[in-house]
Amino acid sequence: MAKTFGHIPGFPVGSLFPRRTELRLAGLHAPNMHGISGNPREGADSIVVSGGYVDDEDHGSWILYTGHGGRDNDTKRQVANQEITDSGNAGLVKSQLEGLPVRVIRGAGGDPRYSPESGFRYDGLFRVESHGSKIGVDGFRIWQFRMVQIDEDDSSPDADVVTLAPTAPAGGTPSRKPVQTQRIVRNTAVAQWVKELHKHTCQVCGDALEVDSGFYSEGAHIQALGKPYNGPDVVGNVLCLCPNDHVRFDNGALYLTDDLKVINALNGQVRGQLRVHAKHKIDLAYVQHHRARWGQ
Amino acid sequence: MAKTFGHIPGFPVGSLFPRRTELRLAGLHAPNMHGISGNPREGADSIVVSGGYVDDEDHGSWILYTGHGGRDNDTKRQVANQEITDSGNAGLVKSQLEGLPVRVIRGAGGDPRYSPESGFRYDGLFRVESHGSKIGVDGFRIWQFRMVQIDEDDSSPDADVVTLAPTAPAGGTPSRKPVQTQRIVRNTAVAQWVKELHKHTCQVCGDALEVDSGFYSEGAHIQALGKPYNGPDVVGNVLCLCPNDHVRFDNGALYLTDDLKVINALNGQVRGQLRVHAKHKIDLAYVQHHRARWGQ
Repeated sequence: MAKTFGHIPGFPVGSLFPRRTELRLAGLHAPNMHGISGNPREGADSIVVSGGYVDDEDHGSWILYTGHGGRDNDTKRQVANQEITDSGNAGLVKSQLEGLPVRVIRGAGGDPRYSPESGFRYDGLFRVESHGSKIGVDGFRIWQFRMVQIDEDDSSPDADVVTLAPTAPAGGTPSRKPVQTQRIVRNTAVAQWVKELHKHTCQVCGDALEVDSGFYSEGAHIQALGKPYNGPDVVGNVLCLCPNDHVRFDNGALYLTDDLKVINALNGQVRGQLRVHAKHKIDLAYVQHHRARWGQ
Repeated sequence: MAKTFGHIPGFPVGSLFPRRTELRLAGLHAPNMHGISGNPREGADSIVVSGGYVDDEDHGSWILYTGHGGRDNDTKRQVANQEITDSGNAGLVKSQLEGLPVRVIRGAGGDPRYSPESGFRYDGLFRVESHGSKIGVDGFRIWQFRMVQIDEDDSSPDADVVTLAPTAPAGGTPSRKPVQTQRIVRNTAVAQWVKELHKHTCQVCGDALEVDSGFYSEGAHIQALGKPYNGPDVVGNVLCLCPNDHVRFDNGALYLTDDLKVINALNGQVRGQLRVHAKHKIDLAYVQHHRARWGQ
């Protein structure tokens, strides 16, 4: 059966369920065991956050969610590396790339500040903002997903297009268009300085994307801004990239060596030398952080 | 003097000014005559909306703003075509491409629903969401910019990164990071169907952008969604594009002929034939609408 993304009619945010069986019967979360309901073809439509992974972090409106695999079911500790190509993990990447909403269900085993006292609670829709890997507390590679709550009460002028429409809210008609945010590109004064210096020429492919009146490029933070990466917004941490290479760089499809060779992570081959400018010194600490995030 | 983007300390939203001289002295809008304060190198930092162009539309939280040029100063009617390369118009394109905030000042001559009774009023920060051209009511080509009010009270989880920080609010310290939205990519179920059909292969360049676990592409609406274009979200109005060609297509740097040749609008040359799929019929009415928007 095809997955259903978004809210499930009849089960509003806050609905409580004694066991996973009831979650499954409600259509909120299909798997009986796995925390992730997802696959690489369709994406992931729901996750259960119930304290199953020691590296999980729950901050209420956002969650650092550990992927699937490598865990000993008895001790709940990591005993092997996780793989991003694991079905559930790849499903969450698909949901990130497409901007698909993920139902989040919290269980009693999770962070006591945000979890129900017993059983499971449906806590609404989140989007997958980013993903990356690190060596977890048990010494094995884990993949983590930054899940950010979708604000469905957003009253900004563009609320009808930048937030997700419930597919069919219980007892009502949808008030928004079924459009979700797939990608948000941000600019900072520091990034703009770097882009102007490079005249909007991509430091990876050498193309400058020209439109009817001007040029377009994007500032890529090497060590990502925001949690959990907390990279700084400084010139040494920014690259001027075209949108295509920015998507690749931010999703681990390319990385840099310490001598600033560009490597295609999918086949390990050198794509070329990063284009540099004398006034733009790239700090290798950020380059190393980026490689570590992608397990290189 | 370099332009200042964002709020001007000491002049909060709602500030009133008797004449343009006082606007200029306050630093809100530098030019004495022009409606647009901007140039292609820095972008546009402010506009005055005061009913100077018959094709302007004011909807409160968004404005369809007519660019500069081609107007008879006595009759205020268009007597010639406008050019997107005109300094102020190109400045607004630059602000769109970089996500720079534009101060909007409304004058007494504008739409009576939203304009001050006399003089000028500072109405806060807007972003340039899109631009395009059409033949205006006077029979000449005009360029128009969709300006959307930035919601600075947005309380969504990502408010600190998706909305703009005031550079230095009067009487306080900035509470947000100085980061602005440069580009928002949206997905719909219809677009996703088209992308899956094409296996995320760009219909213009033939590349499929692969990341660590999956592929990324974007659904481009040929006749744009949303006002003022109002294109429908239907399969015949969607292309599967890579991000680079999507930016080009949405900003008039490429267009399609009725036999689906891809034309580079910057030099008029044929880039190739659009890649098509038997199950994906493109409706030429939308292709023609897109060409008209870009004056082709």
